[in-house]
Amino acid sequence: MNFTKNAVGRMIPEKINDKLVTSFQGVGKFRPQGKKHAPKIATCADYPLDGNKLVPNLKEALLKAGIKDGMTISTHHHFRNGDILAVEIFKIAQELGIKDLVWFPSASFPCQAPIIEQLENGTIHHIEGSMNGPLGKFASEGKMKGAGVLRSHGGRYQAVQDGDVKIDIAIIAAPTADPFGNANGVTGNSACGLLGFALADSQYADKVIVATDNLIPFPCIPWQIQGNYVDYVVEVDQIGIPEKIVSGTTRITKSPDRLHIAELTAKFCEEADLIKDGFSFQAGAGGTSLSIGVYFGEIMKKKGIKARFARGGSNKYLVNMLEEGLVEYILDGQTFDLDGVRSMRDNPRHQNTSPFTSYNYHGKGNFTGMVDIVILGATEVDVNFNANVVTHSDGYLLHGIGGWQNCLFGKNVILPIPLFRDRIPVIRDEVTTICGPGELIDIIVTERGIAINPRRTDLIEKMKNSSLPIKTIQELKAEAEAICGKPKVAEFEDKIIAAIKWVDGTVIDVVRQVKI
Amino acid sequence: MNFTKNAVGRMIPEKINDKLVTSFQGVGKFRPQGKKHAPKIATCADYPLDGNKLVPNLKEALLKAGIKDGMTISTHHHFRNGDILAVEIFKIAQELGIKDLVWFPSASFPCQAPIIEQLENGTIHHIEGSMNGPLGKFASEGKMKGAGVLRSHGGRYQAVQDGDVKIDIAIIAAPTADPFGNANGVTGNSACGLLGFALADSQYADKVIVATDNLIPFPCIPWQIQGNYVDYVVEVDQIGIPEKIVSGTTRITKSPDRLHIAELTAKFCEEADLIKDGFSFQAGAGGTSLSIGVYFGEIMKKKGIKARFARGGSNKYLVNMLEEGLVEYILDGQTFDLDGVRSMRDNPRHQNTSPFTSYNYHGKGNFTGMVDIVILGATEVDVNFNANVVTHSDGYLLHGIGGWQNCLFGKNVILPIPLFRDRIPVIRDEVTTICGPGELIDIIVTERGIAINPRRTDLIEKMKNSSLPIKTIQELKAEAEAICGKPKVAEFEDKIIAAIKWVDGTVIDVVRQVKI
Repeated sequence: MNFTKNAVGRMIPEKINDKLVTSFQGVGKFRPQGKKHAPKIATCADYPLDGNKLVPNLKEALLKAGIKDGMTISTHHHFRNGDILAVEIFKIAQELGIKDLVWFPSASFPCQAPIIEQLENGTIHHIEGSMNGPLGKFASEGKMKGAGVLRSHGGRYQAVQDGDVKIDIAIIAAPTADPFGNANGVTGNSACGLLGFALADSQYADKVIVATDNLIPFPCIPWQIQGNYVDYVVEVDQIGIPEKIVSGTTRITKSPDRLHIAELTAKFCEEADLIKDGFSFQAGAGGTSLSIGVYFGEIMKKKGIKARFARGGSNKYLVNMLEEGLVEYILDGQTFDLDGVRSMRDNPRHQNTSPFTSYNYHGKGNFTGMVDIVILGATEVDVNFNANVVTHSDGYLLHGIGGWQNCLFGKNVILPIPLFRDRIPVIRDEVTTICGPGELIDIIVTERGIAINPRRTDLIEKMKNSSLPIKTIQELKAEAEAICGKPKVAEFEDKIIAAIKWVDGTVIDVVRQVKI
Repeated sequence: MNFTKNAVGRMIPEKINDKLVTSFQGVGKFRPQGKKHAPKIATCADYPLDGNKLVPNLKEALLKAGIKDGMTISTHHHFRNGDILAVEIFKIAQELGIKDLVWFPSASFPCQAPIIEQLENGTIHHIEGSMNGPLGKFASEGKMKGAGVLRSHGGRYQAVQDGDVKIDIAIIAAPTADPFGNANGVTGNSACGLLGFALADSQYADKVIVATDNLIPFPCIPWQIQGNYVDYVVEVDQIGIPEKIVSGTTRITKSPDRLHIAELTAKFCEEADLIKDGFSFQAGAGGTSLSIGVYFGEIMKKKGIKARFARGGSNKYLVNMLEEGLVEYILDGQTFDLDGVRSMRDNPRHQNTSPFTSYNYHGKGNFTGMVDIVILGATEVDVNFNANVVTHSDGYLLHGIGGWQNCLFGKNVILPIPLFRDRIPVIRDEVTTICGPGELIDIIVTERGIAINPRRTDLIEKMKNSSLPIKTIQELKAEAEAICGKPKVAEFEDKIIAAIKWVDGTVIDVVRQVKI
């Protein structure tokens, strides 16, 4: 196998899973050629005139959809760790004796660990998508037949749109649906807010199955998924475990260190004059991010200003800000609690979005570049601001990319991170896996200081008289190492167990089997 | 030129405008091959990162979009007879010396008669789309360089989706838009309700220009048109004449004959047991149709039932029914008055639709087959129930197809029509132009009697003891001829001035130049 060094210095093989890949060429450098994936033209003559696409069960739907060896089967992750369907689908595939499937989830979760059985017995060849927890560990230990391919939410849309991944059968679990296949996530026992992660699947998959535990008469409104893309509808007893779909545990952090990081982040944004009337921000659902949102709210109240929009993941804190009028719109890709679901259902200013609108890099623009302040996490950052979100410093692949890479295109990208975790420094000479190039990461906030990317001379100038602890990233790294010592570098076998795609479909890094 | 006789007996040439065509093969008989049209893959690297796609004016937008000879330029007709933009676009094209454009409107209106100048001087080669009034007359007199191609709303979506028509530049006039290109029709001075007729254009055109007279900061919500499909945004002084966009004159008929037809229609539906709890209907915006809707409302109140949904064109009468709870949902393709606009803006049960969801025959189903009662018009009907909606009996092409062909797939298709107009019988041995095959038309209601299609033995059985004046279509025809005499048949030259496409893209009939 030939390898080439890509634009961030990583060695990339010419093929992954026997398919030629392009290595990362730098931000905005790769130019896509050709045309979007063109699905076959359908005809209404092949569909029931009365709109009733119901089939008795999932197995029959899969058979009607023509499931066979080597196919790519997609699912979405709006049910997060409460998903039931994915495990069921691959059990059925196993029963049917199908081999070498590619599972193409928008993300996988610990609840899907039982799928290891199908990975081991050859039903599934590999997973294209994030592998959180046990599935990641399984892959990291070299046990998956093929290599995993990790993409951002936007990269997944891009891959489907561009035909890099051709979905044979998409199964869309829906909290509410009608027999025509219109579906949404805002109502029903398994309400998860929206179904945006399944948009590409509905538009481009060869066959589309909607499964629901809340079948209602046509029309299911809103139709976040349009029945005109759907082949079969299946009614099932349960599609998700409600209490695990929307986690009620999303709380602002109580850790003093994290609260301190959150406060430093908010103060930095205020001093750097990023919090202005009509500004926009995106904060995640982690404890630190939630706290930052709360601080933002206080600053906005103090200043008597409001944000034009906030990007979700939504939760009760963000919904409160919307309802108090501090935020004019929430543009939401994923609801994290029942307040988020309720708000999206009832408030027209709480707009559901999709990876197409928000993140797809191969569109005519997307939303990421319009966001003023973007708060993201990282497992590691290097002295050139390159960052890692998928592997731990011990080499294990345990997280997906999510929207992280996409959000790097925001105007001011801030990573509030602890200086060390379990006495392992987070800032390193080189990150274990590069998921995002340093040129797109502007500010690192730790409990012991804030580093501004030297490329952001404007911010450095603005903050030169700040009372905040502005330091260089090298200084932060030295502080951590003075406390914890120089961190060990993870050791790997040769086998490539996963590729990390950049937002444009090129490969920015690969992950190898951990040496045990 | 070779001609073949199609499945409804009309002679169809092998080519229209030098492009091979397929002739109508019967309902559901033509099987599309191949794949949907695949637009070029775009990249965010080519679009402003801050999302600002504004260009100073329409001319510059057209130049940036690369306007040149022979291109296909599309517009939508949500502004109806209050549209300003189309005339302006082709004036600019003329100034630029561009020749042989194809204008691909979703419909054209009398206000666009000035475009005759560009049709005469070679700027425009021909119009693909309905030609209401003066443009139709111009074409009928053989003055248009190429042949017009008329499609239903669903057929237009199909043609774009399938790549039968490749739009080079789409100009989408929007009552409200943001600089990213998100746009809607529910707010602003020129509010027209929705922009569904421009959906295909946004998805499939090579270049997309949004023009608005109400530019707001991102995000424009709802985004009926998604900015991710848009190349350029132009702010203009005015995009439409409000009082002509939504006509305030939509009133129930006062003509005793028409009221009688409306009442007969409603009584027929009641007696035939078509008005049941949870039923659905589609009535147009004409005076007779409005009256039928009102009668339906009375019957529903009397019976204590409600409709699951009504298909719009919406207007105050339908909105009233929604607000009174007689109708659970309006699925609306076009708002006809300000009550319709307001309701669509404020009521989540008033759902905007598009030709994709409602009508596209080359999708995985559409809405038409789910509608219980469909009320449509016709200029002529023949003894085999074939009907005409585009030409008058004098041969002039003066109307578009609209959603008419698509709606024929409804469960019970009723044409309430006068037995004669201006002393010319409407029921004929042969219609001047066949737009819809008789097998899809179930009931003809005239002021002197009701004819049921012999294929509907179920309805004939149901109505055999009815007190309503059930007659054969031959009896109705004879009555009209007894009063008015046998109607003259229109005389034509050889020149084909327009093709009438069926919902699947095949040619069901052609229209020839009138003999003057």
